[in-house]
This record gives sequence, structure tokens and C-alpha cells, in this order.
Amino acid sequence: MSTVTPDRNYIGIDISGASLHAALVSHEGQVVARREAALETATLPAQIAGIVAELRDAAPNVVALGLGVPGLVNPETGRVVVSSDLPAAVRADLQSELARATNLPIALANDANAAAYGEYIAGAGRGSRNMFYVTIGTGIGGALIMDGKLWYGDSGFAGEFGHITIDREGIECTCGNTGCLETVASAPNIVRRTHERLVRDSTSSLTRLGLNKNFTAADIAHAANEGDDFALLMIERTGRYIGTAIAAVINLLNIQRIVLGGGVMDAGKLILDPIIREAGRRSFQPCFEATQIVAATLGADAVPTGAAMLARDAATTK
Amino acid sequence: MSTVTPDRNYIGIDISGASLHAALVSHEGQVVARREAALETATLPAQIAGIVAELRDAAPNVVALGLGVPGLVNPETGRVVVSSDLPAAVRADLQSELARATNLPIALANDANAAAYGEYIAGAGRGSRNMFYVTIGTGIGGALIMDGKLWYGDSGFAGEFGHITIDREGIECTCGNTGCLETVASAPNIVRRTHERLVRDSTSSLTRLGLNKNFTAADIAHAANEGDDFALLMIERTGRYIGTAIAAVINLLNIQRIVLGGGVMDAGKLILDPIIREAGRRSFQPCFEATQIVAATLGADAVPTGAAMLARDAATTK
Repeated sequence: MSTVTPDRNYIGIDISGASLHAALVSHEGQVVARREAALETATLPAQIAGIVAELRDAAPNVVALGLGVPGLVNPETGRVVVSSDLPAAVRADLQSELARATNLPIALANDANAAAYGEYIAGAGRGSRNMFYVTIGTGIGGALIMDGKLWYGDSGFAGEFGHITIDREGIECTCGNTGCLETVASAPNIVRRTHERLVRDSTSSLTRLGLNKNFTAADIAHAANEGDDFALLMIERTGRYIGTAIAAVINLLNIQRIVLGGGVMDAGKLILDPIIREAGRRSFQPCFEATQIVAATLGADAVPTGAAMLARDAATTK
Repeated sequence: MSTVTPDRNYIGIDISGASLHAALVSHEGQVVARREAALETATLPAQIAGIVAELRDAAPNVVALGLGVPGLVNPETGRVVVSSDLPAAVRADLQSELARATNLPIALANDANAAAYGEYIAGAGRGSRNMFYVTIGTGIGGALIMDGKLWYGDSGFAGEFGHITIDREGIECTCGNTGCLETVASAPNIVRRTHERLVRDSTSSLTRLGLNKNFTAADIAHAANEGDDFALLMIERTGRYIGTAIAAVINLLNIQRIVLGGGVMDAGKLILDPIIREAGRRSFQPCFEATQIVAATLGADAVPTGAAMLARDAATTK
């Protein structure tokens, strides 16, 4: 046994949410071990270094570390250039501090890009060459893989799926536009639309189902799964909005596979079926027929896996 | 003089309209000579061979022939696989017949792809690496250049810009969807919308301007250029529809340059300005700021130039 060279491993860490998700990932993208903790933004480099040390105990041959961050990463410099959720000091020094603390090469990646690459390597994107990834949760993001590589776009912002206009007369979005997909299909906006309908229709079955005023998008999906017609209608309409934007992707890119992840997709078939139906109705048929539309499969592993694989690629090409 | 080796030249021919446009094109994409004729579909290979012979008299060192065709070309086989406008017999044999008749390597390309590549090499796309091309005329098409190469998509249909949904409640499109961009912004649909407004508003200034019932989109643009408020409104609204779809391209691809061609763009600034304004309003700002939106510059030379350059590339890599 002692003569066997251990495989090369990588660590990927998702710091884009309230919790930090870390994974030890094999060269081929299989998750070997996991760690999860509440994110400590004030002492983030130390927290990450500690988790890296723990995971290295599990597998000594760790070659590189990848981080999925909630912001734009300059692909040239690897620096976080725009982030709403990380303190500025952490943004500026994160890469060099971690390199010092862990003595590993560090790759930073936007969280949606990392999730896309994770699904591409080890999840629902496996076997495709061209893939569009969508994440639908509190916000809506996307990422594009062309010929096996992430397409960053001219300034690193490609894949802004959530800000495609769905309704030219729609409500204002945080981005300044009106009627973006995000204004109707993100988790908070599913809740908003449902509240608005409840005001119109006070006998709603959601009330009958005993949901209190602070229900979430997940509660609506749950009620829909339990067979509530009104909740089902809200999920189905959400799927149709998403399908309309998916059709634009299909028409423009004639892409082989579209992978849908994020919390809203936890509704499963109830939302995936109307997405596919509406995408089929609204896209050019020869493009639609070439596209597989599937649910993401990696869940919380997607970002750590993709970040680890991007760190692998960066370490391999150096 | 006799010791100078003549430059390598290429011939590109556009057979996508009622007229055939042929050009002798230098290795760098400059048009050296042109031929134009009514398209003779019944005897197309013979017609093309004749024109090729004429152009070869002008410059003996012709290396390859490229054809822009109104249909889908399989990039692997070079065969026309879908075309609404070419007789089936011509589709099947065009490439081999022309190769025999001209003794040149033949490259076939979809007309929108050829126009895009022409603008990229020698027109409004020069100096960019990533470019989206849109043509707005009787129909609306598009084509995508990523990292200097045409992106065909998984089955050759990428760039179906005209069938992006602009209005989910809009009228039915020939493609089966409702509210495609083409249903409001193609030349015939600009005319349709204008007619509908004229019925509502019988005192319209278009009537005052002396246009008869059979006016065209070009007539509307002309009236707008002459200062007619109503015609201007119709052109401006058309621009806003187009700008909405352009914003989807900008958001998804974070693309460096967008080049707009086709007959409807002959309205110039009157339509380009509202396109840019609406695209700016409806796209994610960091994406928009990275994008240059410009008018095509090659006109009828775009398809022949691009077809010639694709023939050049195919001959060079062989």
C-alpha cells in the first residue's frame, strides 16, 4: 500500500452564502469529504485556512484551493473586483493572504461560474460540450460554457440571465430596468407575487393550508407539492417566466444543454415541466430540439466542486 | 513587374436574395471587383461558373470560392441542409457541381453567418474579438463570433435573434411562437404596424405626405428622415423593440461589439439611437458599458466578403 502514489486532490470552498461549504475534491471532480460552517467574514482568511488544514488531514495530497465568491472576479488577475457581500479588505487581500496561510495556489471564481463548472464536470452537465447554467434563488444568475470552457465575456459579466427583460411593462428591478426575469421569478418575487394574489383573493387555499404571513418560496413549492391548486398555479407561472428567458438562450446560442439549479428549482418537476414547455413554445424549433433542459444535481456541492476544478485547471496549465 | 507574385484572391457570392452579388476579394478582405445579376435558380451552377470565370479574368490568382446561401449549412459537410429559397436539386449538388465547373475549393455558408464574418474581417466588426451581428430586413437574423470564430451552436442554428420573445402577449409568428421580435420589427411588420395605426388615425401625416397604400418600410424611414412625426414615432418604437432584444444579447454574452445591418438599418441614426438607448435601459450596466453598438458598413458587400473569407480560412487550414 505504501508504494501507491495518492491521487491529486483539490479543495473548493463556497463563500457566497451565509454558510461556508468546503469540499475535498478528487482530480476527476468527485467530492471526497465536506465541511460546513457559518461564514465568519471578519476573520475569513483564518477561518478558511483552518478548514483547509482539516481537509488536508483527510487527504495529504492537496494541490490547489479554489474559492467561489459572490462577486465578479477578474479572470486575468484572479482578484474580486465587484462584490456586494464581502468586506472590501477581504476582497483586496483574500488571494494573497490565503496563499500565504495555506501555501497553495489559489483560484477565485464567481459563484455562478463555479457552480456551472462543477455541474459541467461532475453533475448534470456531464457529457456536454456547450452548456448554459442558471441558478434561481434569492437572485437569478447564469454562466456559459462553450467548447468546454467558461465564457467570461468581454469584461467578466457574461451570463446575466436574471436581467433579461420578460415584461416590457413590468415592475422596476434593482438594476434600473423594468420587467427583468428577476422581478418575477426570484424566490422573494415569487413570494411577492403570491402575496399580491392573496390580497386579491382572501379565500386562498394557501391560507387554508395554514401558512402564516411570513411564508417563503419554499413553502409555496411545498404547498404545491401537497396538491394546493393556487400554489401550483404560482409555481407554474414562475416556470413560464423562466422558460421565456430560457428560450432566448436557446435561440441565441443553439446550446446543447441547459442546467437549472438554485433553491427555486427544489420544486422539482412542478417547475421544470412548465419551464421546458414554455421554452419549447417560445424557441425556434430546430434550436429547441437540440437542447436538453435538466435540473442541476450537485446541490450545495456545485460551487465547491467547480471552484476546486477551476483551481485544478489553473494549477495544471501553469 | 513580372517577378512580383500576385496576391492570393478569393471569390464570394451572395445567392440569398433575388439578385446575385459576387465579389473578388483580397486575402485581407478588400473587395477588388464586383458582379451583380438577377438570380437564375434554374441554372444556378452554370450562372455562378460564368461569373467566376469573368472575375478570374480580372485577377488570375483565385484560390477558393465562398457562397452565402439562404439556409442552414452543415459546418461538417458544407452541405445546405435547410433552405426555404433554393430548389432541392441545387441544394444537394451545388457544392460538387461548382467544384467541377470552377476547379476551386468551395465553402458554403449561411448568409447571416457570412455577413457577420464579412463585417468582422473588413467592416464594422474590425478590431473586435467577440461580436454579435444582426440583420434586420424582410426577416431578422443574427450570427455570433466568439474569439474570432463563428459560433455555429450545437446544430448550426445559433444566432436566431429574430425569434426572441419581445411581447409575451404579442401576435403569432411564422415560427409558432407569439410576440417574437420579428413580429414587430421586420420590414413587413413595420409596415403592418404602421397600417394599423393609420386605420386608427385617419388624419395621419403619412397620408399628408402623399404615400399610397403600398408604402414600404423604406418609405416610412424616408418620411421620418423628412421630419414626419408619425413616421419618426414608428421608427423609434421599432428601435425600442430591437433594443430590448439587443439587451438580452448583452446580458447573456457580455459581448464586445454588436453590428446591425439589413435594410431596416438604412434609417440610420433615427433607428440606431433608440436601439442604443433602449439596450442601455434594459441591460445590466457593466455589460452594457463594455459593448459598442454600431451600424454595419459593408452593405451588399458583407455576404460576398464573408463568404470569400470563410473560403480563405477553409483553404488555409486544409
